[in-house]
Amino acid sequence: MECKCCDRKTIRNEEEKKKLNSRINRIIGQLEGIKRMVDDDRYCGDILIQLSASDKAIKSLASIVLDDHMHSCVLNSVKEGDTSKIDEIVELFRRFS
Amino acid sequence: MECKCCDRKTIRNEEEKKKLNSRINRIIGQLEGIKRMVDDDRYCGDILIQLSASDKAIKSLASIVLDDHMHSCVLNSVKEGDTSKIDEIVELFRRFS
Amino acid sequence: MECKCCDRKTIRNEEEKKKLNSRINRIIGQLEGIKRMVDDDRYCGDILIQLSASDKAIKSLASIVLDDHMHSCVLNSVKEGDTSKIDEIVELFRRFS
Amino acid sequence: MECKCCDRKTIRNEEEKKKLNSRINRIIGQLEGIKRMVDDDRYCGDILIQLSASDKAIKSLASIVLDDHMHSCVLNSVKEGDTSKIDEIVELFRRFS
Repeated sequence: MECKCCDRKTIRNEEEKKKLNSRINRIIGQLEGIKRMVDDDRYCGDILIQLSASDKAIKSLASIVLDDHMHSCVLNSVKEGDTSKIDEIVELFRRFS
Repeated sequence: MECKCCDRKTIRNEEEKKKLNSRINRIIGQLEGIKRMVDDDRYCGDILIQLSASDKAIKSLASIVLDDHMHSCVLNSVKEGDTSKIDEIVELFRRFS
Repeated sequence: MECKCCDRKTIRNEEEKKKLNSRINRIIGQLEGIKRMVDDDRYCGDILIQLSASDKAIKSLASIVLDDHMHSCVLNSVKEGDTSKIDEIVELFRRFS
Repeated sequence: MECKCCDRKTIRNEEEKKKLNSRINRIIGQLEGIKRMVDDDRYCGDILIQLSASDKAIKSLASIVLDDHMHSCVLNSVKEGDTSKIDEIVELFRRFS
């Protein structure tokens, strides 16, 4: 197999790209919906609830990307004796928590 | 002035709508950028950093909407003796924290 | 009634103090338990799960303090025409989210 | 060396135990301080700021424990071909984010 994850590239097949991008499209759809709520003078409390849903959707997507990342890039680099990606994970944990 | 915030409606002027929607557009732009990163086989670690930036942008937008909401709907309803919106704020705090 | 909340003081009765302090004691108890886990060479993964439980307990306590605060200090100051405490709430929302 | 991390045990030397427990003691100290604030009728807004500081301190401690965990248990098990701990990390990410 060619490398799936090297030189700061992550090679994804078409199915993986489609899965991730359809999730991102769904979040964009939620945000377009929030724009319509603003235009329609919808109640701020309801807009805030929708924003918290978009926030959860982004975190859920991040956990999927992290899952893929750990099982490919991180796993392979550790097997090859390179532990630098482990520090990146701790840094990402700090950013999201 | 007619009510700005009643019957679960929040009346916004054109400037307020423009300000909120341009912020939402910026977050949508970030997410479109992340889709391009996926298509271009960009490194997962970099995608996760971008997702954490979108997450922060959504929370920052939420705090702006909350600010407006507190200074209009919540303020007015409390002045009129209605405290129901205060419980909504505590519930929103729970959702976002 | 004397003021319950003025000059940056919040007067609490014995029952309220007991309720809050028993919750804080429970979180301290969790943390004492985590110290014992460290001493007993317990698995880091399990320690992290306990830390996430303490984190949730602190946020839950914060939402209770916020609830009291909104229904007393914030409510009263708004009724008296002082809106400065509303900005404090938005700032607290930013800190916790 | 015997295993540092096996059978859901994490062997720590005295220095590591001291480092972790002194951090936990500091958080307990913060919470004892918050109890005194409650007893002294201190302003809820100030109590909430202290609670957000304790929340940050717990997350910071969690990132230190995670860092140790990734560089010992996770690293070693991956080298030995066991990837089960990787799923635990993703689950912990979900709990804290």
